[in-house]
Amino acid sequence: MENILEYLESNRLSELKNILNEENPVDIAEHFENLSKEKTILVFRILQKDTASEVFSYLSSEKQEEIIESITDEELKRILDELFLDDTVDLIEEMPANIVDKILKNSSSETRKLINQFLKYPENSAGGVMTVEYVSFKNDMTIGQALSYFKNVGMNKEDTDICFVIDKTRHFLGIITLKQLIIVEDDVPLVDAMDTSIPTVNTLDDQEEVADLFRKYDYNSIPVVDNENRLVGLITIDDVVDVIDQENTEDFHIMAAMEPSNEEYLRESIFSLAKHRIIWLLVLMISATATGIIIRKYESVLQSVVTLAIFIPMLMDTGGNAGSQSATLIIRGLALGEIELKDIGKIVWKEFRVSILVGIVLALVNFLRIYYIDQVGFTIAMVVCFSLLITVIIAKVVGGSLPIIAKALKLDPAIMASPLITTIVDACALAIYFQLSSHFLNLVS
Amino acid sequence: MENILEYLESNRLSELKNILNEENPVDIAEHFENLSKEKTILVFRILQKDTASEVFSYLSSEKQEEIIESITDEELKRILDELFLDDTVDLIEEMPANIVDKILKNSSSETRKLINQFLKYPENSAGGVMTVEYVSFKNDMTIGQALSYFKNVGMNKEDTDICFVIDKTRHFLGIITLKQLIIVEDDVPLVDAMDTSIPTVNTLDDQEEVADLFRKYDYNSIPVVDNENRLVGLITIDDVVDVIDQENTEDFHIMAAMEPSNEEYLRESIFSLAKHRIIWLLVLMISATATGIIIRKYESVLQSVVTLAIFIPMLMDTGGNAGSQSATLIIRGLALGEIELKDIGKIVWKEFRVSILVGIVLALVNFLRIYYIDQVGFTIAMVVCFSLLITVIIAKVVGGSLPIIAKALKLDPAIMASPLITTIVDACALAIYFQLSSHFLNLVS
Repeated sequence: MENILEYLESNRLSELKNILNEENPVDIAEHFENLSKEKTILVFRILQKDTASEVFSYLSSEKQEEIIESITDEELKRILDELFLDDTVDLIEEMPANIVDKILKNSSSETRKLINQFLKYPENSAGGVMTVEYVSFKNDMTIGQALSYFKNVGMNKEDTDICFVIDKTRHFLGIITLKQLIIVEDDVPLVDAMDTSIPTVNTLDDQEEVADLFRKYDYNSIPVVDNENRLVGLITIDDVVDVIDQENTEDFHIMAAMEPSNEEYLRESIFSLAKHRIIWLLVLMISATATGIIIRKYESVLQSVVTLAIFIPMLMDTGGNAGSQSATLIIRGLALGEIELKDIGKIVWKEFRVSILVGIVLALVNFLRIYYIDQVGFTIAMVVCFSLLITVIIAKVVGGSLPIIAKALKLDPAIMASPLITTIVDACALAIYFQLSSHFLNLVS
Repeated sequence: MENILEYLESNRLSELKNILNEENPVDIAEHFENLSKEKTILVFRILQKDTASEVFSYLSSEKQEEIIESITDEELKRILDELFLDDTVDLIEEMPANIVDKILKNSSSETRKLINQFLKYPENSAGGVMTVEYVSFKNDMTIGQALSYFKNVGMNKEDTDICFVIDKTRHFLGIITLKQLIIVEDDVPLVDAMDTSIPTVNTLDDQEEVADLFRKYDYNSIPVVDNENRLVGLITIDDVVDVIDQENTEDFHIMAAMEPSNEEYLRESIFSLAKHRIIWLLVLMISATATGIIIRKYESVLQSVVTLAIFIPMLMDTGGNAGSQSATLIIRGLALGEIELKDIGKIVWKEFRVSILVGIVLALVNFLRIYYIDQVGFTIAMVVCFSLLITVIIAKVVGGSLPIIAKALKLDPAIMASPLITTIVDACALAIYFQLSSHFLNLVS
């Protein structure tokens, strides 16, 4: 459709209604983001009842708030009835207190109880991600009975390809795919057709572990159970995609020395942006003092041969880059579960050999450049290149091992990324550089 | 199960067989990785026929090669018959020539044709990721007819929650979920129950665009069509999780100045690791020359007040960190589709204000530290802190805008990450520092 505003201005509402009802709810929701509050309500009210709740679940929280404020209790009740519980919980977590009151007032007492239950799960746990709109069958049913039951209750449940089999005390027994339900003969007992090899997760499991399970087993849904193995929910892989995006964003932020934020950049205030950045900048700025102290210690060396200062940036940058390459590979390997703590020996040995290869090439190229092109004296050129080689070796071994050590200490390996490695490697690089300089140039430090 | 080797050594094969056939194929595949070649074949042969192919698809390519080498043509044929076409294509892409010959020899001529078709799709395209084991119904069927058809053909198809509706020339018309198939009355025409609002992708679309579609719409599967809108395949969200992991790994690698690699770190040779790192290290090392030239230009300033050198690492590091924070936020925002080219003005203005906030705090803390604790002279302390403020502002504005500019130039924004930003910011920082120093300390450069 071309422009929703044109329809509104020329008052062709029934035409607009027909066009909107053909569209995907995700796309309809997008139209709303550019409408004024008044027009938002107008357009929202012409949507079909069942489409309206789905569109509502895809709106930004600002738009949701506008709508809830303006509609009647009757209308709100109808939306809440259709909304999946996990969407209602997300809504409550985003809304200000007066809106939350209006939502709770218009929810059934049963829904309110479930909402309370949900709000108790830790933010990044399986319980916080799961949905409760699944279909479960009792273990004494046949395929045919399960099919009839599904015809009755399936409509308002999450779109998924599996249902669950439970015993009479709700203990989880296995899954049955919709495909099996259709294909297997009606008189076969459910328990004979179900798959019992599917892994389950506990409500309190971390969402990152859940994502790893989805990566390992190619299922589209995984059951969530409580400590007594009773079925309480279902996690679908489309929620896991959000989890993976969120966890990756966190790693990117931490690796660039920021406190992670899930707010979209363009929506975040400048104070919030500054707050997330300042702590690490301060910490790293003060840590860089160590490098300053090393220079101060060798001030007389620098005074005698001030040319030495020319190569400080090159040494620092190359060391930092070499270290952050190694750290990034290891941090990523740990995040994807490809690297484990016990691999530290292998990693150090591998990084050591790689650093010698890389370091020799860099040192040779650098020697050719500064000796033949920049016409620096032979001894200084040798000192610079030898410092470069040692710096690269230290950078890669430190960069490769610190993330593993962080993991062993139960810290997030991502903090051992470029900024911290750079600070550490800088100090080492300059200490080596000045030590070699004062030795080979016969200077007194 | 405790240890597969114990069963083998005590020759309790039928016991092992029973235990393995209860396990999830993914877990069975894991056991193989620690077995010798001889034992691999032995255990593989005791698996049930249908489990064997599934386990095979989860093995590492080394194990797959061992098995194909050792089994008979008959056995290989049976595995290939059960394997999904996309798994066969992956297999062919990984295997050496003699194994590929053995595979093709034992595939049906129809499969060989399809394999050839698949191998023609670009590596990171929708065609390369899709599967062809989907179920499609003709548009003149009723729900009941579709159900009977599904019962006949569904068994060997990919596990998914949707089927497709096509016309007699295979043009894609819409989807029907298994849920709808079960719930809707048998005499309803398919075309009345199908959903036509689902987006499709073209075989040649980039896999990253496909992942974005899955992110936006909460579908578990998306149809793949050719240029004439004829249905050719299906992409399921579990394949998209692999794509997302792969694209993120690429971004992490590029942002740490490496050529991206999809090989697991521990499996990659040291020469391959070195090769992926050396180019960028060389480029950045040579770029750092610019910073060296600036120092050389101001050599006499540094000669007069060698103390100035003490603050070079702090200025360079802080500038680099401030810039990489901004660059990372923008690169990530672009990757998730939250930021677009047209936002560049907003971003520069936002980064400018954030940088002033952050820069003032950093400069103040730094002044307190170097003036009161390090007892540096007032003028030098002022010059250092003022340089710091300007460096942070430049770093954040450059860091925030370069990824957008890269995107506008059709380059990967991820190259504008920490290493490149650091190199650029270093040169600016030092130029400002020495310029301010020579001005305020009345030195001649």
